Amino acid sequence: MAKLVLIRHGQSEWNLKNLFTGWVDVNLSEQGVEEAKNAGRSLKAEGLEFDFAYTSVLTRAIKTLHFALEESDQLWIPETKTWRLNERHYGALQGQNKADAAEKWGDDQVHIWRRSYDVLPPMQDVDAEGSIANDRRYADLDPRTVPAGENLKVTLDRVIPFWEDEIAPKLKDDKNIIIAAHGNSLRALSKYIENISDDDILNLEMATGEPVVYTFNTELEVTDKKILEKK
Amino acid sequence: MAKLVLIRHGQSEWNLKNLFTGWVDVNLSEQGVEEAKNAGRSLKAEGLEFDFAYTSVLTRAIKTLHFALEESDQLWIPETKTWRLNERHYGALQGQNKADAAEKWGDDQVHIWRRSYDVLPPMQDVDAEGSIANDRRYADLDPRTVPAGENLKVTLDRVIPFWEDEIAPKLKDDKNIIIAAHGNSLRALSKYIENISDDDILNLEMATGEPVVYTFNTELEVTDKKILEKK
Repeated sequence: MAKLVLIRHGQSEWNLKNLFTGWVDVNLSEQGVEEAKNAGRSLKAEGLEFDFAYTSVLTRAIKTLHFALEESDQLWIPETKTWRLNERHYGALQGQNKADAAEKWGDDQVHIWRRSYDVLPPMQDVDAEGSIANDRRYADLDPRTVPAGENLKVTLDRVIPFWEDEIAPKLKDDKNIIIAAHGNSLRALSKYIENISDDDILNLEMATGEPVVYTFNTELEVTDKKILEKK
Repeated sequence: MAKLVLIRHGQSEWNLKNLFTGWVDVNLSEQGVEEAKNAGRSLKAEGLEFDFAYTSVLTRAIKTLHFALEESDQLWIPETKTWRLNERHYGALQGQNKADAAEKWGDDQVHIWRRSYDVLPPMQDVDAEGSIANDRRYADLDPRTVPAGENLKVTLDRVIPFWEDEIAPKLKDDKNIIIAAHGNSLRALSKYIENISDDDILNLEMATGEPVVYTFNTELEVTDKKILEKK
């Protein structure tokens, strides 16, 4: 029975400041580092051994993966990074303080952008500070692929090919996989895995640094789900 | 003009204790971590940007790579780990204190094992402490591939396919590459790159944590070699 573990990265420097982060490449806070190491110790205590590791191209998720793998003595396993696991792109909200955004656009509107499944945020201007237009890590992508703002539906649409091409075949081949990523890319993945409705998915909140362990049968049905809670 | 950077991992916990290490998976010492971070700062100061990163399956090289990439703001580049970049396997000497080994086998003999190109060390017993016989990271290899002891010649023989398959095509395609590995796997690679004789290669000593920057033309001839020395 193949296992898939999802880990949401620990606290980042911008979580601390209550800023919309999205695709901005901020680092883990000290607490975030500790959360990642703790997650690794939980994996080790569970005896979880992985064949493949995946993460986004954002530092806070990559470092979470590395700390978790190192603490569970498997930093050596093959690792692949993909923009498809990036956090939801928050458009023009990126870099904004959440209180400032509420003042600028109104509480209700910001709530809708945060909590609706298919309403797009205002698009980020290509010249905006923190724009990824000149970011080398996306330079090889078709420009039409690079988002300027996403809702959860769009995030799900770009996560699914990753699931189809990389994860599903390996799980069917009985390989164990670990993915370290972000609140919304993991929410999207969970929606697909557990077949959660558009309405219910917004209520799914994955805790940072608490590995979620899925077990699958060969039809890729979930036979067990277990959360390794913080001690 | 493509660039290739080689970094020898910083000091490990067993370097500190003067033990033969080889394929034993020991960690970096605190000094080793600092050396790796410094190497990353040197890369950044040189403006070196990489397309691909490679390392061995041993923690001390992997962590050196991660620290160097993080300090130079490119932890996100694709990374591949391969046993072909592992340190030379020191056979039965692994885990021995260098003084104890000299007492057991004689100074001259140990010197020959350390400094000859093609004399094999005593093979490691499959039941020996620290044997890799049951190490999951080598479980998929043909058993005939997994060494029980290597000289530099054998190390070179298993590094070359990695150069041929992974590195040379990318350099010819004008990609920049970083490799973090070990004293002897990098010595083997340097021998091949610079066409150094069997006799002379034993005198090549690469300093830990000091990136060596090669520039190649499209015929894969070295047009420049620069060492980023510690400040």
